[in-house]
Amino acid sequence: MKSDLEISQETQLKPIIRVADSIGINEDDLELYGKYKAKINFTTMKNFSKKEDGRLVLVTSINPTPAGEGKSTVTVGLGDALNQLDKKAVIALREPSLGPVMGIKGGATGGGYAQVLPMEDINLHFTGDMHAITSANNALSALLDNHIHQGNELGIDPRRVIWKRVVDLNDRALRNVIVGLGGPIQGVPREDGFDITVASEIMAILCLAADLDDLKARLARIVIGYTYDRRPVTAGDLKAEGSLALLLKDAIKPNLVQTIYGTPAFIHGGPFANIAHGCNSVLATKTALKIADYVVTEAGFGADLGGEKFLDIKVPNLQKAPDTIVIVATVRALKMHGGLDKAELQTENLEALHKGFANLKRHIRNMRSYKIPVIVAINEFVTDTEAELELLKELCEKEGVIAKRASVWENGAEGGVELAKAVVELIDTKDANYVPLYQSSDSIKSKVNAVVQKIYGGKEVSFSKKAENQILEFEKNGWSDLPICMAKTQYSFSDDPTLLGAPEDFTITIREFVPKLGAGFLVALTGDVMTMPGLPKKPAALNMNVTNKGEVVGLF
Amino acid sequence: MKSDLEISQETQLKPIIRVADSIGINEDDLELYGKYKAKINFTTMKNFSKKEDGRLVLVTSINPTPAGEGKSTVTVGLGDALNQLDKKAVIALREPSLGPVMGIKGGATGGGYAQVLPMEDINLHFTGDMHAITSANNALSALLDNHIHQGNELGIDPRRVIWKRVVDLNDRALRNVIVGLGGPIQGVPREDGFDITVASEIMAILCLAADLDDLKARLARIVIGYTYDRRPVTAGDLKAEGSLALLLKDAIKPNLVQTIYGTPAFIHGGPFANIAHGCNSVLATKTALKIADYVVTEAGFGADLGGEKFLDIKVPNLQKAPDTIVIVATVRALKMHGGLDKAELQTENLEALHKGFANLKRHIRNMRSYKIPVIVAINEFVTDTEAELELLKELCEKEGVIAKRASVWENGAEGGVELAKAVVELIDTKDANYVPLYQSSDSIKSKVNAVVQKIYGGKEVSFSKKAENQILEFEKNGWSDLPICMAKTQYSFSDDPTLLGAPEDFTITIREFVPKLGAGFLVALTGDVMTMPGLPKKPAALNMNVTNKGEVVGLF
Repeated sequence: MKSDLEISQETQLKPIIRVADSIGINEDDLELYGKYKAKINFTTMKNFSKKEDGRLVLVTSINPTPAGEGKSTVTVGLGDALNQLDKKAVIALREPSLGPVMGIKGGATGGGYAQVLPMEDINLHFTGDMHAITSANNALSALLDNHIHQGNELGIDPRRVIWKRVVDLNDRALRNVIVGLGGPIQGVPREDGFDITVASEIMAILCLAADLDDLKARLARIVIGYTYDRRPVTAGDLKAEGSLALLLKDAIKPNLVQTIYGTPAFIHGGPFANIAHGCNSVLATKTALKIADYVVTEAGFGADLGGEKFLDIKVPNLQKAPDTIVIVATVRALKMHGGLDKAELQTENLEALHKGFANLKRHIRNMRSYKIPVIVAINEFVTDTEAELELLKELCEKEGVIAKRASVWENGAEGGVELAKAVVELIDTKDANYVPLYQSSDSIKSKVNAVVQKIYGGKEVSFSKKAENQILEFEKNGWSDLPICMAKTQYSFSDDPTLLGAPEDFTITIREFVPKLGAGFLVALTGDVMTMPGLPKKPAALNMNVTNKGEVVGLF
Repeated sequence: MKSDLEISQETQLKPIIRVADSIGINEDDLELYGKYKAKINFTTMKNFSKKEDGRLVLVTSINPTPAGEGKSTVTVGLGDALNQLDKKAVIALREPSLGPVMGIKGGATGGGYAQVLPMEDINLHFTGDMHAITSANNALSALLDNHIHQGNELGIDPRRVIWKRVVDLNDRALRNVIVGLGGPIQGVPREDGFDITVASEIMAILCLAADLDDLKARLARIVIGYTYDRRPVTAGDLKAEGSLALLLKDAIKPNLVQTIYGTPAFIHGGPFANIAHGCNSVLATKTALKIADYVVTEAGFGADLGGEKFLDIKVPNLQKAPDTIVIVATVRALKMHGGLDKAELQTENLEALHKGFANLKRHIRNMRSYKIPVIVAINEFVTDTEAELELLKELCEKEGVIAKRASVWENGAEGGVELAKAVVELIDTKDANYVPLYQSSDSIKSKVNAVVQKIYGGKEVSFSKKAENQILEFEKNGWSDLPICMAKTQYSFSDDPTLLGAPEDFTITIREFVPKLGAGFLVALTGDVMTMPGLPKKPAALNMNVTNKGEVVGLF
């Protein structure tokens, strides 16, 4: 069996100039990064501004398990299949983070014959967006610590700084650090920590900004900490927004690449789906909608996290809701939700599948509650039996939802054609009438309750004393009409990662809120949320290499 | 008076494809980064491998002062002037570091009408080389701390780790930090610190590597610390070199840009000239030599630091010595070396100039001791009087050295023509017969003595007890035939930055050595050496901005 990297290296790519030309973007609107990657200039969107938006297809999934769901793979394969049907489709995905690539995950650009290319570049430095975000994030930290060191005119309390530094690596040793040691000329000592770059608020900002001016206004609103008398201090108070926006002037432009089949793919931005909203950039999706008749995009983690946030955070910024939602499920993963261990997945087990279907069922009901048509994509694995695949289809149909098998990993575009036909038909025959989960004017507590009770299926929410105090403070600050961004484990509807399937009667505890005024949401922390992954005992990096000719080795 | 940025923005650039074409590099050998920047593929050098090398002109300077010398400006202007004379010249410079750009310095791409462009991009993220080096440096740190955390098979002593993390920012709060706090699952606590990226050994390695295989071999030799029983541990012991080389696979390719006059300029690599060797990459210089008849390059800081290191560290790796050396001096700076304050420089003062000439004189003699013809470039300022300029010329001529006035900042190529003519004539009439300062087989102490006594003009060297012990250890490890890389203040021949002019009878104290086995030199630390600058009270960043259309503001 060929590796993703081998398939990628065998593919004859089209020059990106030709890919762009095929969707009406001419060379003057491109900034090339080598022959197969390009950024799109700001002018492009204006050229297309009179065109009607294309149809938006959101791909989301059941709660992820170690069995694998293949959401990105289905997203890519569905785009390829739509083009096989001459439907003028474009894909919009997130950028991979270098940390997980070098840690445990390998590439994050689809798999098999449903990949975006060149995977070597996209998985490494790509067009430098992550690095620009890292620089901007850490420039703000440097300006902040310098301000404190140089007299602290704003009266920032070093114990109440909430802005952290970032690196785009998995580096657990940087989770908790003390900076500013070494005596009076080396700065003011304080506790700090590093997050991974995709967890930076600046990543979320980049992905929600409408243009450079909006980016700058959002950067200025970032709350970096509090004064000794507890007033919030912003990046704007430090006069940092101009230089930070300057550092992001290229990163804000959407990146264009292609799939194995030459389908144009915008890969831009990649915020975490726990402490951020987990979707690619608004600018990329908007550009794609102006260019294509069908835009296939995905949201991070399961439909309870990425899906919910796409609908309640991204949609208001995008000013466009999906026309249909594809929920990806696999027989293997549902069997794990039904109680099996990973080692038991090789053999047919209809009972476990039936039991695990409860997870998918809740996601179907959730997504439908937004009044958007839903379809299930069954991402096939070789170990699936016909009986299992049939049972899953029947269970979906009993819920009134079409389920289509897809084998894009193995068969590429051809393996997604049935799914693509069903998606087109669903869009043509059923209207989407998006209704949000809550109103921005609802209280903070009632918004959190709406997510927990209506989406997670939990019984109630318990707010810690700290969270209760923060709600009062946020109301006083005028921040209470922002949407809520839940930071929760991706593995369960509950805040306990071991509760698979469709748990009930659980309570979600909100430990703390983190105000993200720049991104424009309030993060609600439940349980321990990992914002800096660690490396495993044998990191993927140890197998990576490059030949003297520059050929990549070991990137999965 | 127009700012550098305004001049840059007014200039109509040629597409980089055309610049490349003018020196025989075709489009297939380029990797474009937008329309005006490109990387050169590995194949290019092979295409030119039969051509004889061009002539190499090294631009260096007196000891820098706050009055400014304009070494990069003269380098760029000389290249432009040579082309004005139809001499087929190419420029090879270092890449600016983002930290100083956002701190106090603004751009580092020449000035006035002697600039490399697009200065906005070169001074910000450029083609991402700095970010790739930052990632590789910090990936090694993450792998190292992960190794210690995951059982520490190699027995690395966390108290004896010498590998530091880096950021490409001026951030004093990161000079001394404690990492790994938070309990057993967050890593092993230890003291650490961050250098600025250009101080990373990986930057020095990238600039000295012959190709990707050599890069990888050098990366494997990096000493990251010592075991509990004091044996050196390398990046190769951690099996890190493959992934680090992979992260650098594009960064190692030289970058091509152009000057205001369209002169091709390779801008690649930028190691510090104190704890590293301070020159652009060997690969870029080699490529330039294959392409051009004249290559104008510069070395960091003054001739005592960058100049000496170019000749004793870069030349053996480049396997080519300069054909002539240009020493840049200004009347203003020499007057400071003669004892004046910056405020006193506006008025004519022949006595101070005469006295300060001692600094230039020692640099002239030093550079001549390498048996390479030397010429002085007097970089003119509006405040210089004719009497001062004439006196300086006379003083140089008394030393048997031609001195030519240059006004490239104000007049561009035209302002450098006299200098360019003299450089060509010098090369045509006087042979260079490079002799190194010391032999690699000399002892560590005798190499340090050679630099201090023959170049700095010091009386003697005092080695601390630690340094004495390290010499014994290095001899035991078989490291003693490496060249010495002196880490000394750039402001004085001595290790006291306030001793301007040409101090005598001073002793240089070697506090400590740092083995840089990957770069292939032993750093000798004298006094306090700054490897992480701080921000001033009002950082340059506070004036930077970008308009909604993407136009850059405030980058000097």
